[in-house]
Amino acid sequence: MAHYGAKVVVPIDLKKKPWEQKHPLHNRWHPDIPVVAEVKDGEVFRVEMVDFSGGGITSDYSAEDVKHADQSIVSEVFRVEMVDWTGSVIKDDDSAADVKFIDLSTVHYLSGPIRVVDKNETPAMPGDLLAVEICNLGPLPGDEWGYTATFDRENGGGFLTDHFPCATKAIWYFEGIYAYSPHIPGVRFPGLTHPGIIGTAPSMELLNIWNEREREVEENGHKSLKLCEVLHSRPLANLPSTKGCHLGKIKKGTAEWEKIAKEAARTIPGRENGGNCDIKNLSRGSKIYLPVFVEGANLSTGDMHFSQGDGEVSFCGAIEMSGFLELKCEIIRGGMKEYLTPMGPTPLHVNPIFEIGPVEPRFSEWLVFEGISVDESGRQHFLDASVAYKRAVLNAIDYLSKFGYSKEQVYLLLSCCPCEGRISGIVDAPNAVATLAIPTAIFDQDIRPKAGKVPIGPRLVRKPDVLRCSYDGNLPTTKNPAASM
Amino acid sequence: MAHYGAKVVVPIDLKKKPWEQKHPLHNRWHPDIPVVAEVKDGEVFRVEMVDFSGGGITSDYSAEDVKHADQSIVSEVFRVEMVDWTGSVIKDDDSAADVKFIDLSTVHYLSGPIRVVDKNETPAMPGDLLAVEICNLGPLPGDEWGYTATFDRENGGGFLTDHFPCATKAIWYFEGIYAYSPHIPGVRFPGLTHPGIIGTAPSMELLNIWNEREREVEENGHKSLKLCEVLHSRPLANLPSTKGCHLGKIKKGTAEWEKIAKEAARTIPGRENGGNCDIKNLSRGSKIYLPVFVEGANLSTGDMHFSQGDGEVSFCGAIEMSGFLELKCEIIRGGMKEYLTPMGPTPLHVNPIFEIGPVEPRFSEWLVFEGISVDESGRQHFLDASVAYKRAVLNAIDYLSKFGYSKEQVYLLLSCCPCEGRISGIVDAPNAVATLAIPTAIFDQDIRPKAGKVPIGPRLVRKPDVLRCSYDGNLPTTKNPAASM
Amino acid sequence: MAHYGAKVVVPIDLKKKPWEQKHPLHNRWHPDIPVVAEVKDGEVFRVEMVDFSGGGITSDYSAEDVKHADQSIVSEVFRVEMVDWTGSVIKDDDSAADVKFIDLSTVHYLSGPIRVVDKNETPAMPGDLLAVEICNLGPLPGDEWGYTATFDRENGGGFLTDHFPCATKAIWYFEGIYAYSPHIPGVRFPGLTHPGIIGTAPSMELLNIWNEREREVEENGHKSLKLCEVLHSRPLANLPSTKGCHLGKIKKGTAEWEKIAKEAARTIPGRENGGNCDIKNLSRGSKIYLPVFVEGANLSTGDMHFSQGDGEVSFCGAIEMSGFLELKCEIIRGGMKEYLTPMGPTPLHVNPIFEIGPVEPRFSEWLVFEGISVDESGRQHFLDASVAYKRAVLNAIDYLSKFGYSKEQVYLLLSCCPCEGRISGIVDAPNAVATLAIPTAIFDQDIRPKAGKVPIGPRLVRKPDVLRCSYDGNLPTTKNPAASM
Amino acid sequence: MAHYGAKVVVPIDLKKKPWEQKHPLHNRWHPDIPVVAEVKDGEVFRVEMVDFSGGGITSDYSAEDVKHADQSIVSEVFRVEMVDWTGSVIKDDDSAADVKFIDLSTVHYLSGPIRVVDKNETPAMPGDLLAVEICNLGPLPGDEWGYTATFDRENGGGFLTDHFPCATKAIWYFEGIYAYSPHIPGVRFPGLTHPGIIGTAPSMELLNIWNEREREVEENGHKSLKLCEVLHSRPLANLPSTKGCHLGKIKKGTAEWEKIAKEAARTIPGRENGGNCDIKNLSRGSKIYLPVFVEGANLSTGDMHFSQGDGEVSFCGAIEMSGFLELKCEIIRGGMKEYLTPMGPTPLHVNPIFEIGPVEPRFSEWLVFEGISVDESGRQHFLDASVAYKRAVLNAIDYLSKFGYSKEQVYLLLSCCPCEGRISGIVDAPNAVATLAIPTAIFDQDIRPKAGKVPIGPRLVRKPDVLRCSYDGNLPTTKNPAASM
Repeated sequence: MAHYGAKVVVPIDLKKKPWEQKHPLHNRWHPDIPVVAEVKDGEVFRVEMVDFSGGGITSDYSAEDVKHADQSIVSEVFRVEMVDWTGSVIKDDDSAADVKFIDLSTVHYLSGPIRVVDKNETPAMPGDLLAVEICNLGPLPGDEWGYTATFDRENGGGFLTDHFPCATKAIWYFEGIYAYSPHIPGVRFPGLTHPGIIGTAPSMELLNIWNEREREVEENGHKSLKLCEVLHSRPLANLPSTKGCHLGKIKKGTAEWEKIAKEAARTIPGRENGGNCDIKNLSRGSKIYLPVFVEGANLSTGDMHFSQGDGEVSFCGAIEMSGFLELKCEIIRGGMKEYLTPMGPTPLHVNPIFEIGPVEPRFSEWLVFEGISVDESGRQHFLDASVAYKRAVLNAIDYLSKFGYSKEQVYLLLSCCPCEGRISGIVDAPNAVATLAIPTAIFDQDIRPKAGKVPIGPRLVRKPDVLRCSYDGNLPTTKNPAASM
Repeated sequence: MAHYGAKVVVPIDLKKKPWEQKHPLHNRWHPDIPVVAEVKDGEVFRVEMVDFSGGGITSDYSAEDVKHADQSIVSEVFRVEMVDWTGSVIKDDDSAADVKFIDLSTVHYLSGPIRVVDKNETPAMPGDLLAVEICNLGPLPGDEWGYTATFDRENGGGFLTDHFPCATKAIWYFEGIYAYSPHIPGVRFPGLTHPGIIGTAPSMELLNIWNEREREVEENGHKSLKLCEVLHSRPLANLPSTKGCHLGKIKKGTAEWEKIAKEAARTIPGRENGGNCDIKNLSRGSKIYLPVFVEGANLSTGDMHFSQGDGEVSFCGAIEMSGFLELKCEIIRGGMKEYLTPMGPTPLHVNPIFEIGPVEPRFSEWLVFEGISVDESGRQHFLDASVAYKRAVLNAIDYLSKFGYSKEQVYLLLSCCPCEGRISGIVDAPNAVATLAIPTAIFDQDIRPKAGKVPIGPRLVRKPDVLRCSYDGNLPTTKNPAASM
Repeated sequence: MAHYGAKVVVPIDLKKKPWEQKHPLHNRWHPDIPVVAEVKDGEVFRVEMVDFSGGGITSDYSAEDVKHADQSIVSEVFRVEMVDWTGSVIKDDDSAADVKFIDLSTVHYLSGPIRVVDKNETPAMPGDLLAVEICNLGPLPGDEWGYTATFDRENGGGFLTDHFPCATKAIWYFEGIYAYSPHIPGVRFPGLTHPGIIGTAPSMELLNIWNEREREVEENGHKSLKLCEVLHSRPLANLPSTKGCHLGKIKKGTAEWEKIAKEAARTIPGRENGGNCDIKNLSRGSKIYLPVFVEGANLSTGDMHFSQGDGEVSFCGAIEMSGFLELKCEIIRGGMKEYLTPMGPTPLHVNPIFEIGPVEPRFSEWLVFEGISVDESGRQHFLDASVAYKRAVLNAIDYLSKFGYSKEQVYLLLSCCPCEGRISGIVDAPNAVATLAIPTAIFDQDIRPKAGKVPIGPRLVRKPDVLRCSYDGNLPTTKNPAASM
Repeated sequence: MAHYGAKVVVPIDLKKKPWEQKHPLHNRWHPDIPVVAEVKDGEVFRVEMVDFSGGGITSDYSAEDVKHADQSIVSEVFRVEMVDWTGSVIKDDDSAADVKFIDLSTVHYLSGPIRVVDKNETPAMPGDLLAVEICNLGPLPGDEWGYTATFDRENGGGFLTDHFPCATKAIWYFEGIYAYSPHIPGVRFPGLTHPGIIGTAPSMELLNIWNEREREVEENGHKSLKLCEVLHSRPLANLPSTKGCHLGKIKKGTAEWEKIAKEAARTIPGRENGGNCDIKNLSRGSKIYLPVFVEGANLSTGDMHFSQGDGEVSFCGAIEMSGFLELKCEIIRGGMKEYLTPMGPTPLHVNPIFEIGPVEPRFSEWLVFEGISVDESGRQHFLDASVAYKRAVLNAIDYLSKFGYSKEQVYLLLSCCPCEGRISGIVDAPNAVATLAIPTAIFDQDIRPKAGKVPIGPRLVRKPDVLRCSYDGNLPTTKNPAASM
């Protein structure tokens, strides 16, 4: 019988931890992380992956940590730990403590690296472009659920962490293409599923560039960047660290591991190799043209999202899940020079190119919120699209909270539903204008403004709210200064 | 015979200057600019408008100025001045000198203000929300052309002015829904026509807030904002000035005129009252929910765009044209409190809400360029979406320039074609990720990457390029550091 | 000053009758109808047109006729006739008598013929293909209204005339892209405006083919076609007749007129030359590839529709209006042989090809009604898509009538709103399956089935119904046999 | 560990024959076919299914039959039979003999019936409406391929069987959402996957109505229906027959089996219970509102299509495959009376209603072919949409055959690609107008008409053609009378 379907090159066993998988996962970028599989140009292959948080629950939070958490949460936590190991640090349970105490040094767990060769067995070479088509993707069978969360302000934060400092969590269940959440009732939407991370391995030269420039911002950023006051996040960058490091087949504690772990880049930001670009439209039928920096390309991927809003504002913000990808690669020889132009001091300062697929959910009506680069204190910023987008998101949260949702529910929702974040105006000094467009069809009530009082939909059954921990830190919380709520 | 169609409340005679119109235009925001017309809730009415630059050609540039311009341009200029007065400062001619020497103190010319009352003749009141539906719009009959331009770096600049310091201009002609340009051959696209500016009059209280916060950034911005180095524009803000000021029916030089002209806000940035929000999707069937700050709402609109890309990156960047709007207003009593939440120190710190219409051009395939918040010198910025978008646009320009276009052609094109600018990731420190998605169907060649050499379309006939002046300033030009071109 | 916009080649003065226009209109197809204008390949030109019924009111119905109409209607009629001549037979008034007594021998009034030549003045020649792009279109300024109607069963009929034998009429008003009707409250939709008729002149050879085959069906159709029992229309075809004939510049009563009038084909059916194809998607940006049968192509167009549903089921069924087209022609030399294949005994048995434009209204949700080829009496028909579609339309009418509409209101609505009629299955003997898909967003209530009683939308204000005349004929009316309503 | 995903209620083992499955399949409609599973209102469940042809290969064609087939085919057949049993009658091999000799008495194999109960265990009752949501669907893992075929004119036929009398077959392989065929090179398209058949069990009363009306057409159809001459199919209907009958759990040969087999309706046509409606848009997120005729509703489904064109013109015409559905049911109590209106002599003469989902492939450009109700001999038919659609399909086939395809390739392609068949005009006597719209993006060449010769795409590699058998029957083949090819 002929073989149909995609060849599985990286299988995942959800009963096992990331480092126990047949092809142990890695959570760093480095040229020397060993290849786990090889694929040919034109071949359709399947890569499975855990969710971004991927494992290591026992080290997540100690009993000591938990003492500081709400007592109401504690019993939940232990119940879960004992009976519900699912291979994910973040669990489908009744507490956000897992989010609050998550060890972020371990994220994101990636599947790969995968070596790509052409039909003559010649590998992709530095300077080539690797066209990766996403033929199909989805949740792993039997694991059709996900979560959206905000980290605690002292442990990760998020785009609006100065307004919402607490760790929160909402669970989503999937009914085929649709997701719904017991924590955010009254909404249901089709997923535009995509991998949050897909990228090639950096060369040592590129890795050094990354480490140097990110060290600079971490060390000097606070002095020079006014933005920090309104766009809180700590640390400013995540430099290489051996803590929480996993390097696939390389055994922890060996000299090789020590060397690489000290050099290897964290996976948090998107960079020249693609990586955590979080482009929400990279779904079925999309193509990604990745620059190749090492022989074989060494493609890795992970951080699957059932759905995400532009910006992924709550940080742990898509509907995070385990999943699978069916991919097909084509090597465009010499494509980096042919198609990409360096945008920086070296020929490595390039970015991938993307092609959007033809099967996105079709929405006909959108409600759009606007922000300008004036912050919540009323201060004017100069053409700052980040500040403008922050205000647009805050406007949307406050607006939707009038329809029966808590603000935490809306914050999580806007992070994971298929909303669009646009840079509408970037030249009309001093105001950048950013907009956030929300498809109205995802709600079971009509959310458009109308003459008279806000009509809260009869179909919305109020629920207690998202799962939420307390915030125990020292930083003051920003309120909407003029809001009475 | 019954009356059909929209009642014309602000007619435009293209043979006349803005201040000679039946209802003289204004180019400032102020509560005391006199109302020129009144409309009723539910009534469809028509407002006509000049293009944003609107008039005043004789003062645009002196013979002295022109001497400093390229000699090849001079003769063109004079020919035009004598025979081709069209009511627009920027002309359908063979020179960009009009753009280079434009007097920006006069933009944008707005039609209105229009007072809105309900069916009982009670005007819209502060605290109401004014829902404005765009029933129809388009170019003024007989004036079916427009232009896209970049200002000179010393006179206006633009998003990429440190790369492209020269004034340039491309003319567009309209064939019904389509636009094409003799200066950017090989592209043709349907317009998503919209008014760049629509807004209500500010109250004095709101006006004072604007003037204060913008003065602060103008005076202190250079000290605190690192962004200035990579996002050049001078001045940082445009404060009230009597130069170039037009206030509708108020006679220039009177005491009233002097007082208002000194207080009235410039129209450049979008603000709490809507204004120059440049949201490219505000086309037929859209709705805008504007806060009302003064009795009657005092709606003004102008700066019609045949088409614009998100961000309007070249600044004079949409396809600028004269045009008409057919509007219908509804007053939502008390709607500001009901639907908007202040996002700043006062109840006036709000933003409009928008609803997108159902008749946008339908594109199925998009090529997407990405930028991260690392600038052209290789320096890391912290979650800066403006820097990331700048890099995305630069990436797109360099890419498309490989297909037979000059970089200036692409810069203008991306400013006015229906491309989408997205904030894809805003939480993965230190990199913001912004994307620019371009519909592939607007080109007459296949612009997607392919194995082998860049195949330049046989249908593209190279033209000399956009109209371009020299740059005579002192500021150094940024080059793509690693680009050989 | 340069010329912008389209050159007007056929202007319409709405105050004048069709035969009094600058370029008198014609309502027949014949090679010898004289050309009224000439256009060049590549040139954008404007053609204006009256609505399909276009003129001849005085002969429409005599005082004698009116005696037989409802007395309540009579006074309306005379009031209208005296004060409200608008150039249209069908009037914006309170009666359907104009529809009931319409003289169908005069429809449709067409603008043209227009001769097309290439840049060297060589005309389009038989065997060429004429590519006609619709750059823009719309209602005539100042005449922004239309109507949808059903003819009386004895005078025109329609798809469901055995169910709905009376003449009815609904008036539609336009607010920019939107249409609404005082007679069908609770719906509003954007128009997908298009010309119902566009075609080239037939050659004498083709004309003879038409006349012969249509005479055959008229004479023998009743004997052989079982369909007639369920798809009533009289006559079966409309053969050439001098009654009501208008031939443009040719003077009525001359020998030339007599000869042509006896030969010229009626405009009712679509044929090889295009003609009344009623393809509702032929809107802005579409292209029509018409075969050329006579030198110059002799393009004519008319019967503008603001909107139409697939099938135009009520016959006078689109939103009929006056309007304008902006067109651009390209001659594809030898294109008939190159691109078209005759599908009949002669090389003239071809059909046009169409290309759909990119700016159709975007709907995301559709409710779909199905019909199979079993008629209302329960009788099985063999793979008959017409019967199946009839049942689908009847199903939709009965369904929507549960939401507060009369069946006549829905019949008119489905004829003119942007609903899609599909041939879903045509092979599964004995049942053809046809479907009718209705965009749910055009209603102001949720029309989807739900658990519990039909929830009639609070926003629907019941109105007395469409304008309706009595039916005075002898043919029995078909009822839904099992329906109690 | 919690349960996620859909509960599998009907599993399929592709190694087994339809009657050997855990829940043996059935291929007839009858109220007494025993239920194989029960599901609850609101529960997501998974139904797997074989392809429509489902099994029984050894009885398909005897050695005797094969002698009459082309000798070149014979060896293929035997090779296949021995090594490639896949549970499907139609095989992924190099011959169309399996199609030519298929035993159509056995199609379609359905999974079910499934009994639906509410949360209180009360079953769906006659008079209820069963809302079935398609949450997800796809090919069975490991079986990602399908086929499109035409039956031999003497054994099944098809819409154009008088033009294409031979059995043909094309194999399709799936790359995630995309399908491509080695037999129809140069096309690739995303699937709009759907079940061809989904329906509830008929009551005995409804079954009797079916059998009676279909017997009538089979017996008398030839006398009365002129259509037969141009729309050939034999027999006119498929009446109940014990040959090839499978009734799930009921053992063949028992008295019960004999009784039911003689009464049970064939699955070929769509009817009042849904069934083989072949609506190509019933994909992910769609809803089907089925009338309930027996207690428990007894839902059955099968005949999965990876993709289909409107009309499924080649009969075996979608991309036929095995697959799975994830469904969710809601019982609308009393919904038949509330929402459906009988359209025939009894309250059972109703049709299902459908709702289209939000994730269809997005195409922006369509080429549209038109047909009118004049047949290939030039004879005029009266408002016959079937004849008009036939001519539209023939026009499309001839057109596309100019771009390097054989006509058989295009016939199969139009049967399975996402093309739209519309009833554009059904009132303009005597011509019905039908259109066939083809998305241009599925081709790797530009198929639009252009000035000059037909430019055959450089990327199209001509292949020998689809697999094809000879036609050995007696009926003459229709040619395009004027076509030279």
